[in-house]
Amino acid sequence: MDMIEQIISLALFEDAGLGDITSESILPASHKGTGVITAKQDCVLAGTGVARKTFHMLDPGMDIRMIYLDGDVVQKGTVVLEATGDLLCMLKGERVALNFLQRLSGIASLTKTYMQTLKHPRVRLTDTRKTTPGWRLLEKQAVRAGGGSNHRFSLFDGILIKDNHIAVAGGIAAAVEAVQKQASHLMKIEVEVSDMDQVKQALSAGADVIMLDNMSCAAMKQAVGYINGRALVEASGNVCLERLNDIAATGVDLISCGALTHQAQAVDLSMQIFPGPDNSQQ
Amino acid sequence: MDMIEQIISLALFEDAGLGDITSESILPASHKGTGVITAKQDCVLAGTGVARKTFHMLDPGMDIRMIYLDGDVVQKGTVVLEATGDLLCMLKGERVALNFLQRLSGIASLTKTYMQTLKHPRVRLTDTRKTTPGWRLLEKQAVRAGGGSNHRFSLFDGILIKDNHIAVAGGIAAAVEAVQKQASHLMKIEVEVSDMDQVKQALSAGADVIMLDNMSCAAMKQAVGYINGRALVEASGNVCLERLNDIAATGVDLISCGALTHQAQAVDLSMQIFPGPDNSQQ
Amino acid sequence: MDMIEQIISLALFEDAGLGDITSESILPASHKGTGVITAKQDCVLAGTGVARKTFHMLDPGMDIRMIYLDGDVVQKGTVVLEATGDLLCMLKGERVALNFLQRLSGIASLTKTYMQTLKHPRVRLTDTRKTTPGWRLLEKQAVRAGGGSNHRFSLFDGILIKDNHIAVAGGIAAAVEAVQKQASHLMKIEVEVSDMDQVKQALSAGADVIMLDNMSCAAMKQAVGYINGRALVEASGNVCLERLNDIAATGVDLISCGALTHQAQAVDLSMQIFPGPDNSQQ
Amino acid sequence: MDMIEQIISLALFEDAGLGDITSESILPASHKGTGVITAKQDCVLAGTGVARKTFHMLDPGMDIRMIYLDGDVVQKGTVVLEATGDLLCMLKGERVALNFLQRLSGIASLTKTYMQTLKHPRVRLTDTRKTTPGWRLLEKQAVRAGGGSNHRFSLFDGILIKDNHIAVAGGIAAAVEAVQKQASHLMKIEVEVSDMDQVKQALSAGADVIMLDNMSCAAMKQAVGYINGRALVEASGNVCLERLNDIAATGVDLISCGALTHQAQAVDLSMQIFPGPDNSQQ
Amino acid sequence: MDMIEQIISLALFEDAGLGDITSESILPASHKGTGVITAKQDCVLAGTGVARKTFHMLDPGMDIRMIYLDGDVVQKGTVVLEATGDLLCMLKGERVALNFLQRLSGIASLTKTYMQTLKHPRVRLTDTRKTTPGWRLLEKQAVRAGGGSNHRFSLFDGILIKDNHIAVAGGIAAAVEAVQKQASHLMKIEVEVSDMDQVKQALSAGADVIMLDNMSCAAMKQAVGYINGRALVEASGNVCLERLNDIAATGVDLISCGALTHQAQAVDLSMQIFPGPDNSQQ
Amino acid sequence: MDMIEQIISLALFEDAGLGDITSESILPASHKGTGVITAKQDCVLAGTGVARKTFHMLDPGMDIRMIYLDGDVVQKGTVVLEATGDLLCMLKGERVALNFLQRLSGIASLTKTYMQTLKHPRVRLTDTRKTTPGWRLLEKQAVRAGGGSNHRFSLFDGILIKDNHIAVAGGIAAAVEAVQKQASHLMKIEVEVSDMDQVKQALSAGADVIMLDNMSCAAMKQAVGYINGRALVEASGNVCLERLNDIAATGVDLISCGALTHQAQAVDLSMQIFPGPDNSQQ
Repeated sequence: MDMIEQIISLALFEDAGLGDITSESILPASHKGTGVITAKQDCVLAGTGVARKTFHMLDPGMDIRMIYLDGDVVQKGTVVLEATGDLLCMLKGERVALNFLQRLSGIASLTKTYMQTLKHPRVRLTDTRKTTPGWRLLEKQAVRAGGGSNHRFSLFDGILIKDNHIAVAGGIAAAVEAVQKQASHLMKIEVEVSDMDQVKQALSAGADVIMLDNMSCAAMKQAVGYINGRALVEASGNVCLERLNDIAATGVDLISCGALTHQAQAVDLSMQIFPGPDNSQQ
Repeated sequence: MDMIEQIISLALFEDAGLGDITSESILPASHKGTGVITAKQDCVLAGTGVARKTFHMLDPGMDIRMIYLDGDVVQKGTVVLEATGDLLCMLKGERVALNFLQRLSGIASLTKTYMQTLKHPRVRLTDTRKTTPGWRLLEKQAVRAGGGSNHRFSLFDGILIKDNHIAVAGGIAAAVEAVQKQASHLMKIEVEVSDMDQVKQALSAGADVIMLDNMSCAAMKQAVGYINGRALVEASGNVCLERLNDIAATGVDLISCGALTHQAQAVDLSMQIFPGPDNSQQ
Repeated sequence: MDMIEQIISLALFEDAGLGDITSESILPASHKGTGVITAKQDCVLAGTGVARKTFHMLDPGMDIRMIYLDGDVVQKGTVVLEATGDLLCMLKGERVALNFLQRLSGIASLTKTYMQTLKHPRVRLTDTRKTTPGWRLLEKQAVRAGGGSNHRFSLFDGILIKDNHIAVAGGIAAAVEAVQKQASHLMKIEVEVSDMDQVKQALSAGADVIMLDNMSCAAMKQAVGYINGRALVEASGNVCLERLNDIAATGVDLISCGALTHQAQAVDLSMQIFPGPDNSQQ
Repeated sequence: MDMIEQIISLALFEDAGLGDITSESILPASHKGTGVITAKQDCVLAGTGVARKTFHMLDPGMDIRMIYLDGDVVQKGTVVLEATGDLLCMLKGERVALNFLQRLSGIASLTKTYMQTLKHPRVRLTDTRKTTPGWRLLEKQAVRAGGGSNHRFSLFDGILIKDNHIAVAGGIAAAVEAVQKQASHLMKIEVEVSDMDQVKQALSAGADVIMLDNMSCAAMKQAVGYINGRALVEASGNVCLERLNDIAATGVDLISCGALTHQAQAVDLSMQIFPGPDNSQQ
Repeated sequence: MDMIEQIISLALFEDAGLGDITSESILPASHKGTGVITAKQDCVLAGTGVARKTFHMLDPGMDIRMIYLDGDVVQKGTVVLEATGDLLCMLKGERVALNFLQRLSGIASLTKTYMQTLKHPRVRLTDTRKTTPGWRLLEKQAVRAGGGSNHRFSLFDGILIKDNHIAVAGGIAAAVEAVQKQASHLMKIEVEVSDMDQVKQALSAGADVIMLDNMSCAAMKQAVGYINGRALVEASGNVCLERLNDIAATGVDLISCGALTHQAQAVDLSMQIFPGPDNSQQ
Repeated sequence: MDMIEQIISLALFEDAGLGDITSESILPASHKGTGVITAKQDCVLAGTGVARKTFHMLDPGMDIRMIYLDGDVVQKGTVVLEATGDLLCMLKGERVALNFLQRLSGIASLTKTYMQTLKHPRVRLTDTRKTTPGWRLLEKQAVRAGGGSNHRFSLFDGILIKDNHIAVAGGIAAAVEAVQKQASHLMKIEVEVSDMDQVKQALSAGADVIMLDNMSCAAMKQAVGYINGRALVEASGNVCLERLNDIAATGVDLISCGALTHQAQAVDLSMQIFPGPDNSQQ
């Protein structure tokens, strides 16, 4: 099972692992049904694949028509998915599929708002590792669905030297050197700095990317000027819609924004399920 | 592994399952460190136990002092947890522990806001099944930490007869009877209704709890009057801070509110980590 | 994997996880065969679904005809299931499928005996949590197949306050109150009592169900009279075929009986397998 | 996790995986308690190790005193195990530990009865593969605790050529030869036969062990005489207490008996738990 | 999941569990492709089944044509397998499938070299437990594909009494007796000895197989003469191509050789993949 | 469980998951012992950590003294690890621990040979993804223990555009652009090329690293000259000890070599175990 199947599996288990006592008491075996998922507010969709997989993990033969896909902008009232299959499986998967779709579409929609606000197409807006535990891959996809970019996925697929590393290594230069020796040649090295002095050290140590952490726009502008294209520059910390263009105007290449994931709220989608005629002769 | 260990395990794996290339390149083996988690805004805490367990799954010997616990109201700047142990484990667990704490404290804090708004102590405010897939148990605990109550945990520990069940069974009475036959005598039976006619059917069928779904306050008031204590009454649908007291004033016993979990946003907590002196001689 | 797939998987692994050295040495690849499962004594069937799933986990394409289903009463010599598929898979699954069927049909048959003995149709006969570890769901289904009812499935889907809880809480009233505060409104509260004084306390504390534990029929009759319909009454402890009707005659609503599961013995079913012609050209 | 930890883990999960709502509502955090397990009837113990492991999987620090061990004969009223540790863990493990102990001691006790009946010390009485799915290792240990011997554990650690294998191979000689070629030199080869003609074929094919399946005592006696020590002889099928010594008197070396596991009933053991004083200050 | 599926699953996870960032950035959804695996040097094939299963775990519908099977001798340039299916799955499985095939064919090829060298058809050449952790079943199959035989699979399906066991038991006779009492009657007993005195003890204790460990050819010859057919004799230790026939000439029945698995090197096989036309309309 | 614990767990299971029938028949419960692992030939150690973890997974309290660590060069006869603990656990872990150590030290030793042969300290010698399925992390550590460097770990932590990607994308430029859009800014982009024309395209497309696949030394030299420091250059294909310095002399920055892992053979290490006195009173 890959990471996404693991979180779906956990979710199905916590909701219906020991059965659905209401439905199982009432439904005859192998009753069919049809369900439609409808957006109850305008939004950018994300999680359509995980919704489909949720139903397929319960009923591999369920017939699912994906009317809209991740990244599509849909309006209130739009039907986004239609499914026909085992009714009991549909009832067991309904809440889980919706819970995925609602939160992921919330992230995609919030990201889209940021992207539409951002008036500097040259600047890349990225997520962070401030994601819902267990959902990293899904939330990173939702950010892309909303037009944003991804920062590193985890601690093992990207290098970011922070204050602790610098303290232990005995300085930025020593930290960078230690990492260069161990890491693969396909990895760039990013260093987090908080003032101009550290910017200079990071640059001379050979950092590929310099993260300006919680610095004022004025200080960031000065840093960008000093770096002058010799490294990519990332702004980080306290990024919100209001400050977005001011930060971008400092000339940074990247803005990373935890709010894309941790401030997103669910958008409203609902599912209507229509029981078919009884056909319980298997 | 219980459900909570499973989601922690998944979260640790997605963030550091193949290692932390930055830290592992720089840190000597078995370096100790100390970390403190601080609230960066006023909030109600939740997730302190899962934060502790996160660190203990990485370093079972980590010494963790829980200064505040779930349900405690803390102010910006308060230190809520102190840990001393293996530095590499602390760095690997930091983000995961914070991601849990931030979201769960967000839910507890939002629930507290609802509870403080609600001026009818007789009315129980409950969550729903609109929780983050994989987090059901944790989010239900966070709701309680904020002073709210829990609705059923899942499809197997509570009975709720909805429109689909009624349609398949051929009426409310038939649905209730089917469930009574199958379910344990320790389960109450709740029926979801949307108008006065259904209220009457549910009551005469023997429902223990009647859920008024998306009904106006006027209609709910009328239903409560009709039921007159013969069943518990739950209001559901479109519950928000603004309508909360109006709904409560109809006389219902319970108000269930998906927003407690799906509209909560992370509160800000951060962790500062202080490397100890090098002592890598195991 | 749901709970049932987990126990099947464990069972298949312990019997053939590293192969079937006899069959693999002799059988050509992809040899087909046909098998029939026959009852060797009169019994009530249970476990037919788990038998089918056992074979399907080994050979998803096996063609299985379910001639009789759970709850059916079959006589010695009756063919209950016919399967056609990969011969090696059939040989690997044979013993496991039979072991499930034999024990579960034993439980269903014993339950049926109890139900036929019980002359008070008003009284519900239930199982307990004294089930075979790992088999809870299956044995509860077998009890229903035999005409019995299920008590709570586990510690998380039903409330039962016992002497330890009362001791720690400081009395029945305090225990009931503590549980009412925490548990969902869909849960009834059952209290285990052993004498008349406790019956009174439980009733006044608001217990929905009162379990009379190991009390004499005379004492139970008195308790039922006192309770007088204000709570459901369950008789528990030392329930056997001989005492069944005497207990029922006391007026209790429920009788719970561990013997349904822990005193059941396997009924005899066997499988005959007929190798088809060699067709090992895949 | 080894096989035994897997079945314990499944059992704990099905009973308390999502919590114990009664105890968790009432017990303060980290309350201690003491429990004693007592035999309620005379029996041979088995499962003491799995009972201990059950509690240790919940509370690794629980202090468990094993007063009697597997194979010990204890009388009604004997205390067999004492435990002191976290009260909540004890309550969660109680039923699971007892369910293991009761069934396994039932098997050990039944085996002991067979062994005491058997008056031919030269003959080895063995179990079969007719065990509770998921419990193979545990039930085989219980048979040994009762004084019996184990047949092969599974399809991969012992060779047994049956009618199907013979049919596919085209005869006993061909089947034996095919297995000799594939199997390790540490495996003996057993052939199941049902008449004298097959006995002769098996012997001349080089079988190390010959299983006489469902043959009359007279026929078995004749077979034993013919074989005359050139192979071990096992009697199988329809073995019960009444026929035991008659079968043994035929001169066979081994008697295999499915009843040891599939006809065993739980013996009665119970646990009393005494809550300690509240000490919930961690 | 059986043991082989577990190792494949682990392998797929470590290589592509979080995705294939290159391919996923470039390939449209559901692009088809065709791949062919070709031997780049003469070899004996092994692992063809595991290669197929690797692709099928990623794309159950992949159409795989097995042109050559385990045990087939193929020459440089031979196409051994052709697959058509989802291109992304093929790219994700390519390296894993090849890594399995290359190492397993290396073992089969080395075993074949040993078998062709060995000029005593009466002598059985076996592997040992010196296999790649996690690969036991696969490497044992590869040895058979190369014409060799298998020793015991593991510690639970064959008995081998070594010096430690003898030391603890207090002598060879005591060790053999202890094992005879516990083990199933289908197990032969092998004793490892290192000099003539131990040979005698093992034989008189009733050993079925005697392993001569690291003895000179002269000493082995003497032992074989002494044993004179009363037990099987296995030569072990320091077995290499050069000594093979000298050892066989001593008259031993079996030669066990760790080098078959731990000295094998990968043979070269490669896969060419041809993207089909874009057809991403699912 | 992290990836390394998973492969250890699989290995322990396949060797002793159902027990060690020899040792368990002979050893009293809780017998202690001491073991020493000794190098039987000169080698570079790797796998010392996994050996320790193997024993600790069986007996968490085993006292293990690591005398030499990964990367240490030891000579024949050197004791590298000493352990004292439960004798049965030691016997169960012995073969698995040695199998890990032997293969991983083989890789470290072979890598060391390559590093000592390589006379261009400026050039980095890396491994590939041609590793033993399930062992990726361990073999990459072993390469570093031998002084080599690691290429990307998997398909998700490094970008490598190959011919298939180029074909689907419609050219190198399009492929690079597609990847740049999707991948994190911390990833460098490597392109595999096979002739000078592709070198030019890759460079102008913005490749960070160019892999020269199976090119002659002359062609590589020309490519290096053309690239002239504008990208890192990696030589790949047909790398062996003989060609190593010729390849390095072309001026490439990196040489990747599958042989480090797939041509490595086990080095010889053995374990001697000394049973302590019987102390089976728990």
